[in-house]
Amino acid sequence: MTERLDRQFDFFREIDKEKQIGRQTYLADGTRKENDAEHAWHMAIMTLLLSEYANEKIDVLKTISMLLIHDLVEIDAGDTYAYDDAGKKTQALREAKAAERIYGLLPEDQAKRMHGLWLEFEAQETPEAKFARTMDHIQPMMLNDASGGRSWLEHGVHLSQILRRNERTADGSEKLWEYARERFLEPNVAKKNIADDRSQ
Amino acid sequence: MTERLDRQFDFFREIDKEKQIGRQTYLADGTRKENDAEHAWHMAIMTLLLSEYANEKIDVLKTISMLLIHDLVEIDAGDTYAYDDAGKKTQALREAKAAERIYGLLPEDQAKRMHGLWLEFEAQETPEAKFARTMDHIQPMMLNDASGGRSWLEHGVHLSQILRRNERTADGSEKLWEYARERFLEPNVAKKNIADDRSQ
Repeated sequence: MTERLDRQFDFFREIDKEKQIGRQTYLADGTRKENDAEHAWHMAIMTLLLSEYANEKIDVLKTISMLLIHDLVEIDAGDTYAYDDAGKKTQALREAKAAERIYGLLPEDQAKRMHGLWLEFEAQETPEAKFARTMDHIQPMMLNDASGGRSWLEHGVHLSQILRRNERTADGSEKLWEYARERFLEPNVAKKNIADDRSQ
Repeated sequence: MTERLDRQFDFFREIDKEKQIGRQTYLADGTRKENDAEHAWHMAIMTLLLSEYANEKIDVLKTISMLLIHDLVEIDAGDTYAYDDAGKKTQALREAKAAERIYGLLPEDQAKRMHGLWLEFEAQETPEAKFARTMDHIQPMMLNDASGGRSWLEHGVHLSQILRRNERTADGSEKLWEYARERFLEPNVAKKNIADDRSQ
């Protein structure tokens, strides 16, 4: 039993590094950017309270588990910014290797389960994976709006880029995607925090 | 429906502040101290993978939910350090007021549910509340050990203080408390990171 516990705690110490993986999203008050662990915590609570809006009934524990562990690959692979097209090209391979190593620290049965959850998220086929992605896209939108659109402005993000990235956000929850467009995107297009390239 | 969503998102924006509530525990690599949101994320994953050691069978989703939201009161009440005896005296009242306000931002049904989870954690009567506390005590012990006992040293913490604080940690999991004593406490007593006052 002690060997099993040692492997589990090796994993817990290793994943502590996720607290130092920076994201491009500012906290709501704009004082600094958030990290992956904070982002995962925020989305887990959002899932707990927003599951009622899922298009299909979801297993909440499974969805939360997926969100808690899906960014661990960035410990090795780094955070790839949503609109970094060069980084996107090598992202899949870098993350697959990272998943192998990091989930592999756990006892075999749990490694398989966590790796499986990550693959399920990546495959985007189940209601849980779709809802998790909806959270993954809407949480930073909420913070970008709250912090005055700063991250969008700094990266010169265009509306078409956001809409392309969110082509399937409604697959997890049409209601939440509609709400996000109305409350987070449209006001920031109006304020020119997001460049409107619809008429181009 | 939009009014309900507005209340839910008001809550999500408000709880973003938990990312700025500092704790006394250093990250495993000692570079900085962690915050409440990171701590909650870490414990949620630990619960997902350690529930097999609970003394009594626990509802994992309920335990994780409790851990994700139980420190939100510190947004108003601040973090009270485990060995701050003066702060401890006013902690209960400060936190009760905070719970009222913060969970109260949610739609009434969800406010009641989240407030209820927090009260359940505080009451320490159910298997889930007991296991959640075991996590709440063992996670910082693991990090204190990993970071060379720095937080214990800085606060001049004595073994008797730790044992008193952990009098009921075994109520959630005897196996995990035994493991924590062997792996995290005893080696740090031997290295004099924790002052051994057993013979006094």
